[in-house]
Amino acid sequence: MTADVSRLCSDLARNARLAATQLGCVTGAAKNAWLLASADALVRHADLLISANREDVKEAEANGLSPASIDRLRLTPARIAQAAEGMRQVAALADPVGQIREGSVRPNGLQVQKIGVPLGVILFIYESRPNVTVDAAALCIKSGNAVILRGGKEAMHSNTALHRVLQEPLRAVGLPEQGVQLVPTTDREAVGQLLKMGEFIDLVIPRGGESLIRRVAAEATMPVLKHFNGICHVYVDRDADLDMAERIIINSKCQRPGVCNALESVLIHADVAETFLPQIGKALAERNVQIRGCETTRKHIAQSIPATESDYSTEFLDLIVSMKVVSDLEGAIAHINRHGSKHTDAIITRSLSASQRFVAAVDSSAVIVNASTRFNDGFELGLAAEVGISTDKFHARGPCGLQELTTYKYVVMGSGQIRE
Amino acid sequence: MTADVSRLCSDLARNARLAATQLGCVTGAAKNAWLLASADALVRHADLLISANREDVKEAEANGLSPASIDRLRLTPARIAQAAEGMRQVAALADPVGQIREGSVRPNGLQVQKIGVPLGVILFIYESRPNVTVDAAALCIKSGNAVILRGGKEAMHSNTALHRVLQEPLRAVGLPEQGVQLVPTTDREAVGQLLKMGEFIDLVIPRGGESLIRRVAAEATMPVLKHFNGICHVYVDRDADLDMAERIIINSKCQRPGVCNALESVLIHADVAETFLPQIGKALAERNVQIRGCETTRKHIAQSIPATESDYSTEFLDLIVSMKVVSDLEGAIAHINRHGSKHTDAIITRSLSASQRFVAAVDSSAVIVNASTRFNDGFELGLAAEVGISTDKFHARGPCGLQELTTYKYVVMGSGQIRE
Repeated sequence: MTADVSRLCSDLARNARLAATQLGCVTGAAKNAWLLASADALVRHADLLISANREDVKEAEANGLSPASIDRLRLTPARIAQAAEGMRQVAALADPVGQIREGSVRPNGLQVQKIGVPLGVILFIYESRPNVTVDAAALCIKSGNAVILRGGKEAMHSNTALHRVLQEPLRAVGLPEQGVQLVPTTDREAVGQLLKMGEFIDLVIPRGGESLIRRVAAEATMPVLKHFNGICHVYVDRDADLDMAERIIINSKCQRPGVCNALESVLIHADVAETFLPQIGKALAERNVQIRGCETTRKHIAQSIPATESDYSTEFLDLIVSMKVVSDLEGAIAHINRHGSKHTDAIITRSLSASQRFVAAVDSSAVIVNASTRFNDGFELGLAAEVGISTDKFHARGPCGLQELTTYKYVVMGSGQIRE
Repeated sequence: MTADVSRLCSDLARNARLAATQLGCVTGAAKNAWLLASADALVRHADLLISANREDVKEAEANGLSPASIDRLRLTPARIAQAAEGMRQVAALADPVGQIREGSVRPNGLQVQKIGVPLGVILFIYESRPNVTVDAAALCIKSGNAVILRGGKEAMHSNTALHRVLQEPLRAVGLPEQGVQLVPTTDREAVGQLLKMGEFIDLVIPRGGESLIRRVAAEATMPVLKHFNGICHVYVDRDADLDMAERIIINSKCQRPGVCNALESVLIHADVAETFLPQIGKALAERNVQIRGCETTRKHIAQSIPATESDYSTEFLDLIVSMKVVSDLEGAIAHINRHGSKHTDAIITRSLSASQRFVAAVDSSAVIVNASTRFNDGFELGLAAEVGISTDKFHARGPCGLQELTTYKYVVMGSGQIRE
């Protein structure tokens, strides 16, 4: 059994490497033709996809999965149309391969260009939502990479059907069929085997809970693009517009509480605590947000409950917020750099110098002045599609789109130059 | 003992993290003041440095190190002056921290900037040449990073003296003294301990032999910037200017045979083999270069010896070259992608289409048309100083300079925007 899985994974990785060699050199037109053909095929085969998905849903219900999990798992005509639309949007984006990132002519006449090229083979490991199968394949192929997809076992029927629909048009447009592969087993051993194949796989992207990411990071022999917690802060400065602060806190916390760029912790300058705490307490109460606060918070917000130290390092992903009064801007910065997760942190202030100091000193993938934390997102920052928000500093930080799925090479054009 | 080393390493890492927090926010003027003061101090303390170095050299001689190793280890007034000059050159470079890499205004008025920031803490592990101590410290501080230096045990006296000279001006210009630390023990256990501290150290750069790099890559819990072999090719196309090909091969092989961007393997299109092999055989013989060739090579170059399969995957770092006749351009590309090390590969051709195909299909950090492989170098490509040439694809590829020692953050300036 283990030998079979090992052989299977080795074949997947080698096939992907071969496909990647071809994909690095194909035209943007061929890649776009595949994206558009696949989008059409998804819609055309919607019935087939939904019936495969129904088997997953049936098993999930039998296994007692939560209604929320079953909802994430479910494919509907609307969701399939949305996935197809996503592929069409990716087709419309500029090709990152061949993009000249920098260029210069050296004194000896050498023309030096730094040019975007694919990473090669990407292993994508994800959990229940089957539409990730479509998004990941679209972004990897557009960026010239071969992808090995490893979905959650709950979505195996759906992913198998989706994969079939996506793979067929590859052949039709002349791209290598092994450019998009799905691991055809739910055996957990397969992940371990694939993570050993650093020789053939250039990057692994785990999308899911913290334990998945930690396991992948511990076992991988290739680079990992990690997407950890978002413990995001809004700091209300002494010079804040307090009504703006309220609007931004409510939006950051409540607009979609279950996502990584949602607000988890509010810090308030001591000088405005007495005014602002009752105001924000009322606004959060109206939206049923539980407040876990420091002593001063509790004095001014009757419904708040005491925060423990660990509440300040918790990603609630729910209608819960921690709250703390800090003595000054430096106290806020120190708190964020200690308790935050380098994801997204915002300051609300009218002070230019406070905004400058906050921006310089907070070491997060996005530092935001006077706007919602929810803006740290590929679409909102102008990257278009994204595969996740990196909490790493290496290679890619923050939202990762097509550019982040590529690397570069130097192309040097000469006319016989040698070194003296 | 092990407990002591563990404690020592933990202190080094924590101190570096604290220093990094400060270094990320200092002015370029302060960093440049340190570079210039250190350059002066190196020259001023040359006697002290040379006398410390003399102890290392004495021990090296007693331990029977090779004359070449001892030469690399030796500090001279000229070498110290050169290291000081290097620091002055780094001072003159633009500050990569705060550099706006991209910027746009979103439709909702949000101003989005992608801004260069330091990686944080860099662990630099290197072997005998003590001037790396100076180069590494200069580049890390200029890019706003704290550095932990771990030099080779052969250079411990020299490195300790250099470190003292470099650390003193930090205090004087108001930078954190722990920004440049040296591991004060030669205990091998220290490297293992430091490699566990991914929480405090953001990047490790091993500079040395393959076994060092493999050990570091296997044990590190943080990203590693790897600098592996350079198995560099020159492919002489059917449409090559053969005199240019000769000049470029001779320069690539002989100008400095012991470095990673030196030529190791020559590929020749079958159609020009009969003409070119005697010509290049003669030119290489005049420079005492040993040729290990395929059957056709041996037919035309009398002094050549038969190449084994492993010769085509060997980095000789010496006056030895492997040589093979290939049937066509595609054969050359396939050979390079199979046997090369993704470092530096060149084509000599007059054909535009051949150059375009070669550039697109060869997956190396630098792909060169009609010029010497020796140009894949930070200075030659216009990056100024470099810490090495990455053979990785992730984060940084090819020569790594100041830019590659930084990452970025998104800075988002709003006026109250929330997400709808």
